[in-house]
Amino acid sequence: MPTYTPPLKDLDFVLHDVLRVHESDTPGYADLDRDFTGAILDEAGKIARDVLAPLNVVGDTEGCKLENGVVRTPNGFKEAFNMIREGGWTGLAGDPEYGGQGMPYVLGSAVSEMHVSANLAFNMYQGLTNGAYEAIRAHASDELKVKFLPKMVTCEWTGTMNLTEPHCGTDLGLMRTKADPQTDGSYKISGQKIFISAGEHDMADNIIHLVLAKIPGGPEGVKGISLFIVPKFIVNEDGSLGNRNGVVCGNLEKKMGIHGNSTCVMNFDDAEGYLVGDAHKGLRAMFTMMNAARLGVGLQGLSQASIAYQNAADYARERLQGRNVTGVRNPDGPADPLIVHPDVRRSLMEQKSFVEGARAFILWGATLLDAGELAEDKGAEGLVSLLTPVIKGFLTDKGFDMAVQAQQIFGGHGYIEETGASQFVRDARIAMIYEGANGVQALDLVGRKLASDGGKHVMAFFEIVKSFIKENEGDEALKADFLDPLKAASKDMQAAAMYFMSEGAKNPNAALAGSSDFMHLFGHVALGLMWARMAKASNEALTAGAGDVAFYETKLATGRYYMARSLPETALRLARITTGAEPVMGLAAEAF
Amino acid sequence: MPTYTPPLKDLDFVLHDVLRVHESDTPGYADLDRDFTGAILDEAGKIARDVLAPLNVVGDTEGCKLENGVVRTPNGFKEAFNMIREGGWTGLAGDPEYGGQGMPYVLGSAVSEMHVSANLAFNMYQGLTNGAYEAIRAHASDELKVKFLPKMVTCEWTGTMNLTEPHCGTDLGLMRTKADPQTDGSYKISGQKIFISAGEHDMADNIIHLVLAKIPGGPEGVKGISLFIVPKFIVNEDGSLGNRNGVVCGNLEKKMGIHGNSTCVMNFDDAEGYLVGDAHKGLRAMFTMMNAARLGVGLQGLSQASIAYQNAADYARERLQGRNVTGVRNPDGPADPLIVHPDVRRSLMEQKSFVEGARAFILWGATLLDAGELAEDKGAEGLVSLLTPVIKGFLTDKGFDMAVQAQQIFGGHGYIEETGASQFVRDARIAMIYEGANGVQALDLVGRKLASDGGKHVMAFFEIVKSFIKENEGDEALKADFLDPLKAASKDMQAAAMYFMSEGAKNPNAALAGSSDFMHLFGHVALGLMWARMAKASNEALTAGAGDVAFYETKLATGRYYMARSLPETALRLARITTGAEPVMGLAAEAF
Repeated sequence: MPTYTPPLKDLDFVLHDVLRVHESDTPGYADLDRDFTGAILDEAGKIARDVLAPLNVVGDTEGCKLENGVVRTPNGFKEAFNMIREGGWTGLAGDPEYGGQGMPYVLGSAVSEMHVSANLAFNMYQGLTNGAYEAIRAHASDELKVKFLPKMVTCEWTGTMNLTEPHCGTDLGLMRTKADPQTDGSYKISGQKIFISAGEHDMADNIIHLVLAKIPGGPEGVKGISLFIVPKFIVNEDGSLGNRNGVVCGNLEKKMGIHGNSTCVMNFDDAEGYLVGDAHKGLRAMFTMMNAARLGVGLQGLSQASIAYQNAADYARERLQGRNVTGVRNPDGPADPLIVHPDVRRSLMEQKSFVEGARAFILWGATLLDAGELAEDKGAEGLVSLLTPVIKGFLTDKGFDMAVQAQQIFGGHGYIEETGASQFVRDARIAMIYEGANGVQALDLVGRKLASDGGKHVMAFFEIVKSFIKENEGDEALKADFLDPLKAASKDMQAAAMYFMSEGAKNPNAALAGSSDFMHLFGHVALGLMWARMAKASNEALTAGAGDVAFYETKLATGRYYMARSLPETALRLARITTGAEPVMGLAAEAF
Repeated sequence: MPTYTPPLKDLDFVLHDVLRVHESDTPGYADLDRDFTGAILDEAGKIARDVLAPLNVVGDTEGCKLENGVVRTPNGFKEAFNMIREGGWTGLAGDPEYGGQGMPYVLGSAVSEMHVSANLAFNMYQGLTNGAYEAIRAHASDELKVKFLPKMVTCEWTGTMNLTEPHCGTDLGLMRTKADPQTDGSYKISGQKIFISAGEHDMADNIIHLVLAKIPGGPEGVKGISLFIVPKFIVNEDGSLGNRNGVVCGNLEKKMGIHGNSTCVMNFDDAEGYLVGDAHKGLRAMFTMMNAARLGVGLQGLSQASIAYQNAADYARERLQGRNVTGVRNPDGPADPLIVHPDVRRSLMEQKSFVEGARAFILWGATLLDAGELAEDKGAEGLVSLLTPVIKGFLTDKGFDMAVQAQQIFGGHGYIEETGASQFVRDARIAMIYEGANGVQALDLVGRKLASDGGKHVMAFFEIVKSFIKENEGDEALKADFLDPLKAASKDMQAAAMYFMSEGAKNPNAALAGSSDFMHLFGHVALGLMWARMAKASNEALTAGAGDVAFYETKLATGRYYMARSLPETALRLARITTGAEPVMGLAAEAF
């Protein structure tokens, strides 16, 4: 049975030693002193460890069941959801106007990391609600906001996002779901949506579906898509619940993982819906919430890697197998623990250095999102928009890889379900797919974000790297192990960007063929920057005489691993990118 | 529902254009002309496509069921197994002395690739029998051979390998299963074995367990392990079946994949067993069959990648989503097929170039095994022994990666079970674990095989690469695209081997920390060599005016992709290797 240990000290380190959130002038950050964030994270961690983690395997084993149109969630989910609701966790980062606690997104992210690590499938019910909440808050009329948001902040009502149809995934222009305008200003929605997470379940009094649909007579393709609220139960004027609306769960999908979340086929049959924002501007409304949603999925990559790593490290310390080649370590036992073996150690270091680097990257991204939203910092907003596909794509690709590596440490015991190692792999897999498959993230990055606003955001990123190196180049403790590798990796990234600029102009495929490689290249540079910053913070803490010397020295050693062994991947990615379109596009479709 | 297309033309190309098996003087190869191998492979392919592939999803969905000690295999497995038996497929490479058809291993491998691609879980029942057969044939007394082998060649009786115990996986020295000698020369075996594939099922009249156990009073650790035959039913003198032996299936494991194969906990309680080979020499007997078994698992990596790729390519051609950036390709349809998108193309090229390179590598390995066994070629035997951990470890790591990439092409449809893409991933995952987890393969490669016989086998491999380059360096059609990258990759591998020699002598951890990296480096060089040979064969066929120009040109383009975009990974692997022990071994066990 897997366990979860909240990474409280690591979160505190990133928030305060590295990002120094308590010194930031972003509105709301002044409250985020060590004591305050420590108290919140400690409580959130206990729930993750004691309530959500034990339910993870229950969710996987039992799954959700559809009976007579009702979806039953796994045993214990309802009680846990009540506890989350009652503790006010669902509204932590919610707008106080609608009953939220108005905390910055960065604190919500730190809490979320732990809850998602402990139980991804469970957390999705809340996560989808947050997403729907954001879209309504940003685009709906005040009337709709007042009607729906307060109950969504508390998760008394949960939310969903209805985009996909059987023939229409990434390409939303192919959408067929229709919205017929009614004389009272509402719409009748008809059509079928698939892969709807938390589409139907037994944990909330109402479910607020956000649905993309086409109003007849509107423009063709994506320009004719509108966004609607379609509640499961019609909400009366006085806020009480009225009739059942024309939306039902037609089927539950059988999936590789996240069994605890109900993935529904939703059938809309003349369901009453209310337009959110302007007609035909539904995609724009969805995109508003896309950054936060995609950062949230990137966080899932980190989270699954984190809990998978923790359990693998425990197993490697406990499982006795073989002897250390340079001398027996456990002479009184029948064998030495797995962790003495260099290749096991290599795998654990790879996982650990990824997890800790990714944590810093996620939280840095969250501070940028906050700065964009709360301080209206356009530079931060542009930068996080550039980083979003990297956080989503790179962290979920790597998060899955790390879960696979963690599973490998268990040997055969990782392949059978009882250790939980397989579930982390199966659950982590979805994050590479939903909220825009990672190939689409790479396309968004290279085909859109990189050159947006004249390339100003990527230049800002390079400038951050360059300034950091420059400011610290006199620091011998950082130079060889951290700054030099970061400089080399950043040069690879600049060379790739230059290549895209010169060759991509002639042939877009020359750039797009290397889009996934560039997403990974960028991700490594970002994690290299995070490690350089964490190393600097660790050195400073040690110089200042911090008590926990082992903690900071471990950070430095973990960072050195990343810089020496993971970061050099940038050169390979650059080599691939500069082969251009020809190797990738050379064959006819029939030749595959 | 996934489908399978036997890669007949590709197998023919590797066997005859590249390896030229029909010109080899290995005994038995003279029969392997194009017509003969074509006829066999055509028949084998039909069974794979029409019988085994449709049962793959059935096996996954139904799994095996244990009821009152009896294991029921999924619907249709028994009938398919009868068909395989009746067609004589189980004895294709079996010794004619025991009823086999005496075909070389290379032909068996080509057949096996198709059967394993179509249904890995099903094929394991036969695969385990082949393994047990080999161990008995190599080490048992004539009496035991005559008693057991003829029924195992036909798979009327299937076999198993019983090594693992709950506390004892890779480290067999920890074994507790006991074998008490009886006055009649037999032994009474008692203990528990776990993860026993095909340990109990309803498809054979008898099951012949090969069991490792300790005879009391023998040496400690691995030197005190002996190998026994323990039949499910005692076999009478006249060959008829007698009493049920004291061996039962105590439980079926719940696994991530290969649900169609019964993975059993086997309880031995004073079960009658017969010593195979010498007492206390059981490990040596097991190792005899290890090369073939590990090549067989490497083949599983290729096979799952192959069928996953085929289905992903079909989906990418059919699924309409988005428009080609350089101009619409399907103007009459609502969207262009997925395959127009560069990142989808990149993924398919990566899969295709791996699968075809791996196929050549597997079949080349098989010819070496044949040369070692049938022609007693010591050089070939030593070389295949060196290549074995690379074939097992590299091909299964990459095979899994490719199945994941294939799944990704399906988007959300790959995460739900109905397309079969998830099953290929879940099934492929086991091959990285069993028959020696891939970290153990890397250890075997770097800690043992690389330096064995004074490093002579790796020198022989370098010599093969060098000679190939030298013999062909005047060939302009090969030079830039194939020979130069191969030379660079081979230099990386030599540098890594030199590093291990110089640093590993001072500190074994300096070599072992890079063992997995070296296994991958080696694998890439081997696939680079295979692609260079395939390119040469393709050029020759084109020059000779071969009919199917598109086939050979596709080969060349696919090879160019591999050389340009996959092979450069060797530089990254070398960079990691030469960081040595420190980044990997720097932390205390408590610091993880």
